[in-house]
Amino acid sequence: MKKNEKLRIIPLGGLNEIGKNLTLFECGKDIIVVDCGLAFPDDDMPGVDYVIPDIQYMLKNKDRIAAIFLTHGHEDHIGALPYVLRQINVPVYGTRMTLGIVLNKMKEFNLDKKVRLMQVSAGDVVTVGAFRVEFIHTNHSIADSAALAIHTPCGTVVHTGDFKIDVSPIDGDMIDLARFGELGKAGVLALMSDSTNVGRPGFSVSERKVGASLDEIFRKADQKRIIIATFASNVHRVQQIIDLAIRYKRKVAVSGRSMVTVLDVAMQLGYTHVPKDVIIDIEKTKKYPPEKIVVITTGSQGEPMSALYRMAYSEHKVVEINENDLVVVSASAIPGNEKMVNRMVNELFRSGAEVIYESYAEIHASGHACQEDLKLILGLTRPKFFIPVHGEYRHLKKHATLASSMGIPKENIVVTDIGNIIELDSKTVKIAGTVPSGRVLVDGLGVGDVGNVVLRDRKHLSQDGLIVAVAVVDTDTRTLMTEPEILTRGFVYIKDNEKLMSQVRALAREVIEHCAQDNYDEWMYNAKTKLRDELAKFIFAQTKRKPMILPVIKNV
Amino acid sequence: MKKNEKLRIIPLGGLNEIGKNLTLFECGKDIIVVDCGLAFPDDDMPGVDYVIPDIQYMLKNKDRIAAIFLTHGHEDHIGALPYVLRQINVPVYGTRMTLGIVLNKMKEFNLDKKVRLMQVSAGDVVTVGAFRVEFIHTNHSIADSAALAIHTPCGTVVHTGDFKIDVSPIDGDMIDLARFGELGKAGVLALMSDSTNVGRPGFSVSERKVGASLDEIFRKADQKRIIIATFASNVHRVQQIIDLAIRYKRKVAVSGRSMVTVLDVAMQLGYTHVPKDVIIDIEKTKKYPPEKIVVITTGSQGEPMSALYRMAYSEHKVVEINENDLVVVSASAIPGNEKMVNRMVNELFRSGAEVIYESYAEIHASGHACQEDLKLILGLTRPKFFIPVHGEYRHLKKHATLASSMGIPKENIVVTDIGNIIELDSKTVKIAGTVPSGRVLVDGLGVGDVGNVVLRDRKHLSQDGLIVAVAVVDTDTRTLMTEPEILTRGFVYIKDNEKLMSQVRALAREVIEHCAQDNYDEWMYNAKTKLRDELAKFIFAQTKRKPMILPVIKNV
Repeated sequence: MKKNEKLRIIPLGGLNEIGKNLTLFECGKDIIVVDCGLAFPDDDMPGVDYVIPDIQYMLKNKDRIAAIFLTHGHEDHIGALPYVLRQINVPVYGTRMTLGIVLNKMKEFNLDKKVRLMQVSAGDVVTVGAFRVEFIHTNHSIADSAALAIHTPCGTVVHTGDFKIDVSPIDGDMIDLARFGELGKAGVLALMSDSTNVGRPGFSVSERKVGASLDEIFRKADQKRIIIATFASNVHRVQQIIDLAIRYKRKVAVSGRSMVTVLDVAMQLGYTHVPKDVIIDIEKTKKYPPEKIVVITTGSQGEPMSALYRMAYSEHKVVEINENDLVVVSASAIPGNEKMVNRMVNELFRSGAEVIYESYAEIHASGHACQEDLKLILGLTRPKFFIPVHGEYRHLKKHATLASSMGIPKENIVVTDIGNIIELDSKTVKIAGTVPSGRVLVDGLGVGDVGNVVLRDRKHLSQDGLIVAVAVVDTDTRTLMTEPEILTRGFVYIKDNEKLMSQVRALAREVIEHCAQDNYDEWMYNAKTKLRDELAKFIFAQTKRKPMILPVIKNV
Repeated sequence: MKKNEKLRIIPLGGLNEIGKNLTLFECGKDIIVVDCGLAFPDDDMPGVDYVIPDIQYMLKNKDRIAAIFLTHGHEDHIGALPYVLRQINVPVYGTRMTLGIVLNKMKEFNLDKKVRLMQVSAGDVVTVGAFRVEFIHTNHSIADSAALAIHTPCGTVVHTGDFKIDVSPIDGDMIDLARFGELGKAGVLALMSDSTNVGRPGFSVSERKVGASLDEIFRKADQKRIIIATFASNVHRVQQIIDLAIRYKRKVAVSGRSMVTVLDVAMQLGYTHVPKDVIIDIEKTKKYPPEKIVVITTGSQGEPMSALYRMAYSEHKVVEINENDLVVVSASAIPGNEKMVNRMVNELFRSGAEVIYESYAEIHASGHACQEDLKLILGLTRPKFFIPVHGEYRHLKKHATLASSMGIPKENIVVTDIGNIIELDSKTVKIAGTVPSGRVLVDGLGVGDVGNVVLRDRKHLSQDGLIVAVAVVDTDTRTLMTEPEILTRGFVYIKDNEKLMSQVRALAREVIEHCAQDNYDEWMYNAKTKLRDELAKFIFAQTKRKPMILPVIKNV
């Protein structure tokens, strides 16, 4: 290691977006990776399943990458692992719960035999090359989440991961604020901190508060069956529900694939404690009166085909919703999902159930730090440089303002974007160039074969549908061998618009016959262009719509 | 009028949905209509511009319809007027502001010379056939909104319209609670009440509170230009902004077509008061220093092409956002618009502006009554029957529970759906049949020509795109006259997938040649079906995607 070695931090995801968190740390020839997440597609990416980071730069520097460190087991931090590990199979470090979830995912992708998962605990320090990576216990909406103190020759970088400060967490294990303080006293070069909830004033709400609200709901539930939807990975929430079930003498059944899977992992690893006779098979719930049952389920975001969605729309194999049900949606809608959740809630009400879903009921607590928590971490770590992460631009910017109000000089705060190289030494920080970055779309088996052109076409097709005009032309005589055929989909209901269709057909014939008289070689190409333009013009004049127009002229 | 005449209330919109409010009241041969609104399309209606109610029943009973009564000038209460009045040109009654907005709309649709707009004021009573319709002043997020007391031979129905109770409204004119009380004392047969905010505990926030928050923002704005986006029709909000501009010695410029239009109407009609020298042309703002300017603009929902959106994306002709700007989004995101708003806010921050947009800042107040307001109206009117309106099922249901808690017997509460005939006399209520109802989609010039099949196709096309397979076959020999042509859009990027495309082409040839050997008449039809199935199967196996497949076989 040279004395004047610099530290380069390169985020490939997670800045100016929610999701696909992935950050590289480079020192000399060594590279380590923190998190490896996916993002869920926006509404401008129809048909896309997932979005993963562009890892060209990693592939190019494959040999230099020593390890991947995971802060916790949420999809936006681990979801791209299968795609990355297939190409760059380095050891993956994480806590027990995190790796439990990762192992499940690896099995799905048939990679479990190939990958190297290295389990660590809070307090552990992993040395790889120039880096010593220390895991620090935090609180979040999943168990066993960690912040990282990355000790480098240039100094220590603290990466909070996703966190909140919960002074009364369900497992009794508060975020290790003392360690943040020790690091601060020893000197922190840079802090990278979770910006998700920087817009919210005050302190974050303890998960235990949710338990108190749920207790109230159980107490008043009378003779009703209780059905609670929450995030499968929120094992503390699930634990609280199980504890309440025991207290109120109810059996617990679980529905929804991810809920079953995660609960299995959590129970096996000892994160969730359930007396043997409490959990029953969902099929068996029919044998009990409603007041003896709690169903824990997925679908808190109203996702089509989730268990609660199927219950709402009477498509669930076992659970039929009726007036003896009390449904609790113990989650807040992720931005963009509000309408889906509301639609599902309407259906649940319609089936006669009582539904508790609004934030007023305090049946959910966010896993991310609010303003006062964020200030506390800034105050404890007292970093020289500050890099807000995990947020859209508005979040990063607001977090920067917060840090500035805590006394960090503006020139020491780096609000930046993915692909930028943040270069640090003990005294300075600067953006020292860029690497390729962006989004890679996963659609079915295809990774990266759906790009902007394909998306643009999908959006165009979804707006006004399409018209296909097919003509067969005799090569020699340049005459139509049969009437042009007009097909449409997603444009108008054809049976009610036969007149319009026959006008389009006549126009197509006219255009082709006209073009065929032209005396130059590429008449076919011209005819296609002209066909597209003329049909578009005619249709817009008639309907004020702009369907996609596909002209096909076959020469025989 | 026979003695035992019944009153029939038929909602054609506004129940179990947000928008397209339209309700018929029938007594004997007479029909009156309350409101005539449109709805904005859901995300499962791609390409659709507006949704209007199905008015088949009205058309069939055209001669019986005496008049349309409007409660206020919002699109979800007046937006379907052009479509309805074109076919049923009856007089339209409304207050001054409401008709001012309606007149503008009629001009757009070239109907202003044909329609009969009848201006009334709060307190006025209009007698048409069996009905006496009384306008009662209310508070809402638009000026001059009204509730209706519909006096019929069977009794009095109170329809609140959209309302809230604002004890300190900007125009000093509080909702006429006394009149609600008088009606209650005289006896109210049924109350139809706004359910939008029934989920919110407490009393609604006064519009004046927003003024106080904005005052604070103006006071601290220092040398910055202030840009405020809000709903154009919220003339009281706009008035408060103008008053603050005067207090802080700033000029006001207006941007955005609807803001300019509505402000014009409001100023002409005297709802907005502006000293002459305060408003300047948006072009002229350049001549002033930033601290002397307030821009009032549209775009609070992040609508693409709205004025604020164009400012954010540097596409506005005059206003360039920079670090001397303070942007205030004085509205809350309508469910479904959250992501659009957030994207725009990110862009505004990126241009260097300070942006205030979150609810914590109290820069917006809803125009709809919260729980305590709703209870007050229930308590004042003391109706025999209660019909919650203006809401999704979850709202109607909750409003029913609220009414029940106020002592209205459950059997006297009607939670129902559009198209149902609510039949009342002085003692009983029941659902006495149905009339056709539903949604009619407006897309470009087409009204009703986009239905479920077209929407399904649009959605299918948006998910995985399409493949068109074109083959030309000799009628006599049943042989392909040329290689089949494969076109795709929105499926994969073709240039990177030539191998897949040539496999598809080969498969298409194989299927057609195979089918051509079949010895029955309709081989072409079978070949198309088989082509669709086989290509779908092959493509799904290769890609796990399901593009729409359009086979075209031309016989020549």
